[in-house]
Amino acid sequence: MTLSPEQLAEIEAERSVSRPTRRAVSDGIEAYLYTAQPVLDHGFVRVVDYMGDDAAICQAARVSYGKGTKSVQNDAGLIRYLMRHWHSTPFEMCEIKLHVKLPVFVARQWIRHRTANVNEYSARYSILDREFYIPAPDALAAQSVVNNQGRGAALQGDEAARVLRLLTEDANRAYDSYEAMISQDGQQGLARELARMNLPANIYTQWYWKTDLHNLLHFLRLRADTHAQYEIRVYAEAICKIVADWVPLTWAAFDDYRLGGAALSRTGLDCIRRMLAGEAVTEDTSGMSKGEWREFRALLDGEK
Amino acid sequence: MTLSPEQLAEIEAERSVSRPTRRAVSDGIEAYLYTAQPVLDHGFVRVVDYMGDDAAICQAARVSYGKGTKSVQNDAGLIRYLMRHWHSTPFEMCEIKLHVKLPVFVARQWIRHRTANVNEYSARYSILDREFYIPAPDALAAQSVVNNQGRGAALQGDEAARVLRLLTEDANRAYDSYEAMISQDGQQGLARELARMNLPANIYTQWYWKTDLHNLLHFLRLRADTHAQYEIRVYAEAICKIVADWVPLTWAAFDDYRLGGAALSRTGLDCIRRMLAGEAVTEDTSGMSKGEWREFRALLDGEK
Amino acid sequence: MTLSPEQLAEIEAERSVSRPTRRAVSDGIEAYLYTAQPVLDHGFVRVVDYMGDDAAICQAARVSYGKGTKSVQNDAGLIRYLMRHWHSTPFEMCEIKLHVKLPVFVARQWIRHRTANVNEYSARYSILDREFYIPAPDALAAQSVVNNQGRGAALQGDEAARVLRLLTEDANRAYDSYEAMISQDGQQGLARELARMNLPANIYTQWYWKTDLHNLLHFLRLRADTHAQYEIRVYAEAICKIVADWVPLTWAAFDDYRLGGAALSRTGLDCIRRMLAGEAVTEDTSGMSKGEWREFRALLDGEK
Amino acid sequence: MTLSPEQLAEIEAERSVSRPTRRAVSDGIEAYLYTAQPVLDHGFVRVVDYMGDDAAICQAARVSYGKGTKSVQNDAGLIRYLMRHWHSTPFEMCEIKLHVKLPVFVARQWIRHRTANVNEYSARYSILDREFYIPAPDALAAQSVVNNQGRGAALQGDEAARVLRLLTEDANRAYDSYEAMISQDGQQGLARELARMNLPANIYTQWYWKTDLHNLLHFLRLRADTHAQYEIRVYAEAICKIVADWVPLTWAAFDDYRLGGAALSRTGLDCIRRMLAGEAVTEDTSGMSKGEWREFRALLDGEK
Repeated sequence: MTLSPEQLAEIEAERSVSRPTRRAVSDGIEAYLYTAQPVLDHGFVRVVDYMGDDAAICQAARVSYGKGTKSVQNDAGLIRYLMRHWHSTPFEMCEIKLHVKLPVFVARQWIRHRTANVNEYSARYSILDREFYIPAPDALAAQSVVNNQGRGAALQGDEAARVLRLLTEDANRAYDSYEAMISQDGQQGLARELARMNLPANIYTQWYWKTDLHNLLHFLRLRADTHAQYEIRVYAEAICKIVADWVPLTWAAFDDYRLGGAALSRTGLDCIRRMLAGEAVTEDTSGMSKGEWREFRALLDGEK
Repeated sequence: MTLSPEQLAEIEAERSVSRPTRRAVSDGIEAYLYTAQPVLDHGFVRVVDYMGDDAAICQAARVSYGKGTKSVQNDAGLIRYLMRHWHSTPFEMCEIKLHVKLPVFVARQWIRHRTANVNEYSARYSILDREFYIPAPDALAAQSVVNNQGRGAALQGDEAARVLRLLTEDANRAYDSYEAMISQDGQQGLARELARMNLPANIYTQWYWKTDLHNLLHFLRLRADTHAQYEIRVYAEAICKIVADWVPLTWAAFDDYRLGGAALSRTGLDCIRRMLAGEAVTEDTSGMSKGEWREFRALLDGEK
Repeated sequence: MTLSPEQLAEIEAERSVSRPTRRAVSDGIEAYLYTAQPVLDHGFVRVVDYMGDDAAICQAARVSYGKGTKSVQNDAGLIRYLMRHWHSTPFEMCEIKLHVKLPVFVARQWIRHRTANVNEYSARYSILDREFYIPAPDALAAQSVVNNQGRGAALQGDEAARVLRLLTEDANRAYDSYEAMISQDGQQGLARELARMNLPANIYTQWYWKTDLHNLLHFLRLRADTHAQYEIRVYAEAICKIVADWVPLTWAAFDDYRLGGAALSRTGLDCIRRMLAGEAVTEDTSGMSKGEWREFRALLDGEK
Repeated sequence: MTLSPEQLAEIEAERSVSRPTRRAVSDGIEAYLYTAQPVLDHGFVRVVDYMGDDAAICQAARVSYGKGTKSVQNDAGLIRYLMRHWHSTPFEMCEIKLHVKLPVFVARQWIRHRTANVNEYSARYSILDREFYIPAPDALAAQSVVNNQGRGAALQGDEAARVLRLLTEDANRAYDSYEAMISQDGQQGLARELARMNLPANIYTQWYWKTDLHNLLHFLRLRADTHAQYEIRVYAEAICKIVADWVPLTWAAFDDYRLGGAALSRTGLDCIRRMLAGEAVTEDTSGMSKGEWREFRALLDGEK
């Protein structure tokens, strides 16, 4: 992540000012405000603003006049109850606004979560910087042999070097052409809205992204999961840390019921009941497909 | 609006506490926090929380690193530009959370605006209070004779008195029955989730309602309009005042382009061009239906 | 449900016409079109239109050029895979439009599901009919003694009779007043938009409601659940039957993974692993609260 | 657009089958089903499915039991009324599902319209084809000198040739590298989810996109506008033709009130009133900024 001295000064100036407010304040997240959490080689996540805290969730759930907090213990119990019974509206009462810098191919996955507000840097209007995501050696993974949509071990030796060279050379050549095409030096210059089409999907873009806590947790459940692509997972993990400090009671409930939990099917529940009753259930007698049985066994063996 | 001494004390305690924050602060709306703005006979609007201000809209529009403000004049120009060209995403970067007490029939209109987060007081779980909206004499309007969906002048004399008596008596009788049915004094008591079905649509409910500024402005455009039902319009008007103090630049642009503006059809634009060229356009030569022409003339005559 | 002879004739005329289409057709749901499924004492659910079938879900999941169907067996496997791994977008590719007649207090619960399109009969514009939901004797339940938000056994004897009398009398008196207030016979007549406030929450309204299959299944999971209020659950159950005939493969997967399944927490999974390893886990050693443990035991005992 | 013989045969087979349905059928759009409308050099729009027609909009607006159609003339008047007064819910009762093939940079603009269902071809799972958008000579526009976000006249001569060469060479080199990196011939092969990052934004992707008519019209108003980027505008124009044949009454109202209409500000309306009263309003006396006045004059001069 490279910020100009002017940008750093502007951020620092913003950070140094504290003003009084009557609103709910979460000390845990205040520390993050206007500080960039680095992600990947040039990306970041910055908390720009937030609304609410754990107490605000309880306040809304109780439609209360004042703060709504009875005690931290009561609030923890209420939040666990709400999470366990899928009550989503109280969690929607908290909101967060992030400034994120991320490769375009990550942005394309991210934007599939539609219940959010987004304002992206416009390459129609402005010129993009020469910044590309080039995977670190341990992230340069081979295609998975068991899962079309997955990756295997890191590439080694010549193959790894060749891939890195191709990614770097192609990105720079594409950017050279981009610059050459939009240049107005001795020529008219291609429209920016057209020239951007030459840029690869690992170029960095950035946006302001704002969402409520319920939808954020849904995003994190899917994107902080081990099956998510590594390049979006690291963003989700950076946000997980922020959420844990912002709304610690909600985070604890989310970790127990969602991140660490699992959904079992009617068939799966039935198998567990039979197993607890002493039956040696096998794939053949389980009523599951091969794939489901493998996932089910992994879950019981604690490999999730 | 009747709050218990405990509720008033809880609100006052909440109001009196100021804490430092690094977030954007709008002084104009801070004064509203935790203060109930009375609406109708027992209703209110209370600002519980907010996110962002005029500068935050510009900051997001510029996807900027710092505050994003160049100067108030620049910000005003940018906000007018965004409003004029229907750029909605920067306005979505501000959020407000209100606690509203309102009659059920108003709540049913309000909830049709779906892009918002709502947490309503549960009459399944709790017992509603004996509070009903009874129109003030000047709001006790006759059915419009020209518009099925409108109202005429206020009822007078005996008819007005009769209506007020019926509304008051029926509401109280319904509430008496509600109490009698849920009572567990010498009987089992009907389930609350069933007993509530006896209560009329002018009983008060309350909710936490949270929405972004873009959707709030859309709500205000429709509900602060003269064609909106009076009982929801007074809520919209109370919120208009809050918005004007929260984001004054945005409010000024909204007032000019939306509240005070109008959408003209291709046909209407053509008529104006012909009129400016000296033609005396009439209903017959306008190409409009009778109703459209009436609305068009009213617009040109400044009756909107 | 009472329809006028004209309405019945209009529906019958609509039903009797079949026209050719190149779109996906689901024979299972065609039989429902324009037929009202009765619910409660005066309500109904009518299928007005639908888009897609099981094959269309697979077609979208494969972004295929043709029908996308390889074979029913392949489609069933793909649909189970999509459901198990929470892939929601393919299910969003089916849509249904229903005409529903329902009591207002049920409509108020229903509308909390926001991702749907709704067009409700306007009591601002039109006059409502004298039709109220009066619970059948076995639905006249007492307040639950263990759950604020639930109901116990049916009321008996005098108490039941008294409740039925109150509900019936109050509803009719309220409607008498409604008619008296809007009457233009010898008086101006109160505006409809005001008079409706006198009507109780058990009066019937109706709406067109359109949603995609993903959101419909979410609605059904919450509202066909045993914890849902009986009066909305019967609507959900009527829709469940329609969905089972419309998209049978999707229904089977939904029944296995959602309706018959359950979400376990990290703590719950750990308890199961310990139990399968031979440990006699108790409430005290489970790490759960009293309420969670009770729900957990009920799940293992097959009481869900 | 290049489809394999298998794909063409599959589409043709799909098209040739007609089945009876009781649903609303729009003959105007049936002809489009499963036919690809070519857009740009390799893109297309295909109608996969639709729900409803003009009569269905009226049926929902009237919450009617039967078809809801009184007469075509009545329906036209109702639809114009609904459009003029911004009643959106009846238009939401129609739905369309499209299969679209489009360059990635167009897809990135398109997806900003969030109220839609999308299922995109997965480059994480599958291999993309070697198909890139290369602008036709008359679309190879220079950067606008007056508008950062616009384009000027087409590039000429050497500059045009150089741009075409760069775009073509870079795209092919990037694709060569993509193939080389994922190849499993004598090497492990880079994961597809990583290799795709090397591909430029003019590569074609495809998706199933489903939305309701209200949101589709909003999309068309913004994207069929002369200020929209040419490359998305041609898709919008192709869809405009489909909509005009699908729901002709709605299209006519949309064309009059939206496409051909304009929103005037309070200030703009005031200027028109003054001009009609004989005043010679100038930029100085208009109360508008330079930019607003220019747009206002263009509107009155019929240049919109």
